Amino acid sequence: MLKDCKPALLIIDMINDFNFAHGEILSQKTSTIMPSILDLKDYFYQNKWPIIYINDHYKLWKADLERLIQHCSNERSKHIIDKIAPRKEDYFLIKPKHSAFYGTALESLLQELKVDVLVLTGIAGNICVLFTANDAYMREYSLFVPQDCIASNNDQDNSNALTMMKEVLKANIEPSKFFYEQ
Amino acid sequence: MLKDCKPALLIIDMINDFNFAHGEILSQKTSTIMPSILDLKDYFYQNKWPIIYINDHYKLWKADLERLIQHCSNERSKHIIDKIAPRKEDYFLIKPKHSAFYGTALESLLQELKVDVLVLTGIAGNICVLFTANDAYMREYSLFVPQDCIASNNDQDNSNALTMMKEVLKANIEPSKFFYEQ
Amino acid sequence: MLKDCKPALLIIDMINDFNFAHGEILSQKTSTIMPSILDLKDYFYQNKWPIIYINDHYKLWKADLERLIQHCSNERSKHIIDKIAPRKEDYFLIKPKHSAFYGTALESLLQELKVDVLVLTGIAGNICVLFTANDAYMREYSLFVPQDCIASNNDQDNSNALTMMKEVLKANIEPSKFFYEQ
Amino acid sequence: MLKDCKPALLIIDMINDFNFAHGEILSQKTSTIMPSILDLKDYFYQNKWPIIYINDHYKLWKADLERLIQHCSNERSKHIIDKIAPRKEDYFLIKPKHSAFYGTALESLLQELKVDVLVLTGIAGNICVLFTANDAYMREYSLFVPQDCIASNNDQDNSNALTMMKEVLKANIEPSKFFYEQ
Repeated sequence: MLKDCKPALLIIDMINDFNFAHGEILSQKTSTIMPSILDLKDYFYQNKWPIIYINDHYKLWKADLERLIQHCSNERSKHIIDKIAPRKEDYFLIKPKHSAFYGTALESLLQELKVDVLVLTGIAGNICVLFTANDAYMREYSLFVPQDCIASNNDQDNSNALTMMKEVLKANIEPSKFFYEQ
Repeated sequence: MLKDCKPALLIIDMINDFNFAHGEILSQKTSTIMPSILDLKDYFYQNKWPIIYINDHYKLWKADLERLIQHCSNERSKHIIDKIAPRKEDYFLIKPKHSAFYGTALESLLQELKVDVLVLTGIAGNICVLFTANDAYMREYSLFVPQDCIASNNDQDNSNALTMMKEVLKANIEPSKFFYEQ
Repeated sequence: MLKDCKPALLIIDMINDFNFAHGEILSQKTSTIMPSILDLKDYFYQNKWPIIYINDHYKLWKADLERLIQHCSNERSKHIIDKIAPRKEDYFLIKPKHSAFYGTALESLLQELKVDVLVLTGIAGNICVLFTANDAYMREYSLFVPQDCIASNNDQDNSNALTMMKEVLKANIEPSKFFYEQ
Repeated sequence: MLKDCKPALLIIDMINDFNFAHGEILSQKTSTIMPSILDLKDYFYQNKWPIIYINDHYKLWKADLERLIQHCSNERSKHIIDKIAPRKEDYFLIKPKHSAFYGTALESLLQELKVDVLVLTGIAGNICVLFTANDAYMREYSLFVPQDCIASNNDQDNSNALTMMKEVLKANIEPSKFFYEQ
């Protein structure tokens, strides 16, 4: 399904300290989506497609991965960060606000990589993922948002966000396993 | 409540042809929010605060009000356009996509007008209003989205959008009558 | 030369009141570049390529061509406007600042038109044309800036701007007659 | 002169490998402006005003200072980098293109810091500094571009850029020593 495209995998806000209301709950939900995201990552590595982390900067205002991981690591996050932390060859950008396109080099990077399809994963599904999806849609990228690869504090909010991305932003929201088929 | 601010009233996509799925329903719902928006307009005129229409361009790609009204006028829309059409002194911008900030002069105009609070009204509440609200929030504007001044195809979607604007984007979503008090 | 591309012709700030320091001089210089721009327009019409006017809004904040022409028409400008005014089929956008990309729908329009080459013409060559050229270059458009189709208050400044666009922004700055050849 | 403002110091592309045509020459010219920039930095530290490095990413696409310095260090650059490298408390952003505002978090950062005046320094004066200056001007920042704190491959180009920033972008281009006075 992705084989005919030039896709990039976006991994949104997964380097996270979960220090906010409902952070404990979101940490648990994030654990459940991580296997699917890691499988997608492997599939992208196999196909030599780009993987782009885009993450809150936690007041560092710089994409210094080591310091960011140090800042975010705690009881709620450590088991997640240990597994999902970017490899050296992955792209890693910071974002100052909700959308991955606002105040970032994402658009230039996608243009350089000649990407035309974005696969969105990460948290929170009803905030940063949703608003990134709309910014991508306004720039005319095709969207895949595998429903087993995003999570929100509240399952109903997550489901509403998926429905909105499907109906308003024309995203394919099937489970990630369908994306591996050709 | 608005008296201590420098507010602008945004009227989103109200010059509309309602030629889309559920357009008939949205036209009816739009009729019900129009009195509240017109009252707000009057209040803004009284206070000499700016009123900014921002509207889809319907493939004209220009803010030519007469042609746009001509294009949009039909059985579903005429009674709405007749009442809500901008006066000569109102600002009137077109937008190419969902958000009122994307590909428009809105940010420059707000800067020139020294506005710090946006009152969002119009349609559809769960699409163009919601995504405009997030773009405003990322630019650090305070938001008022009076719940009786936005409408969506589906009432549940409208309600979800209001909740999201309140909780995620810190918008005040009380009914418009509360905004007149001091 | 343009035949293998998907070009658009940009005509910058030619609906102008010339009410500024050196406005009289710029009006005269603008008269001299107009024949070349009009020839280019004809060539674009013949090839059914898009022609996009992008113009200061003169505090109207709307792309209302009639009012804009009315506002700008005076002794210095009338003979220019009479000849260069857009036809109904031309695109006409306003811009709030120097660059044709800043606060405008230009990028969305070019994307919809699938344009990959921009031919820049108009005034002032060392201000709005130059800064539009850089914004186009950052978005990876190829640039043609025919040297007989831009003018500035001062010929040395115009020449410097052309050199900068050639060397820094990789623009082709040959005279427009070369663009007609294949 | 800066005492009544909320200024930020921008240091543009000073972590540089000088691996381009005329790189050797620009390296030498950069050496001559460095004492003035370092003095300005001290003055900003004394006043607890923000210092923001904004730099090409050299295909790393991340603001990883150590790797960037490692990549850029060579015979032409090492004596410059040793002196000008950011301290831990300085902000450090990467930019994908000429302008420091394009594809970066600069605007959000300036908004958070409540900055209203930008002091631009660095290289090249006629490219990245000039185009950053215009983007700042379009966003209505006041500009100081101390003439002894920018350099270009060619002195005439540098002088032309300074003149343009003064006349078109209303920048104060006096030597930096004047900025210390009150």
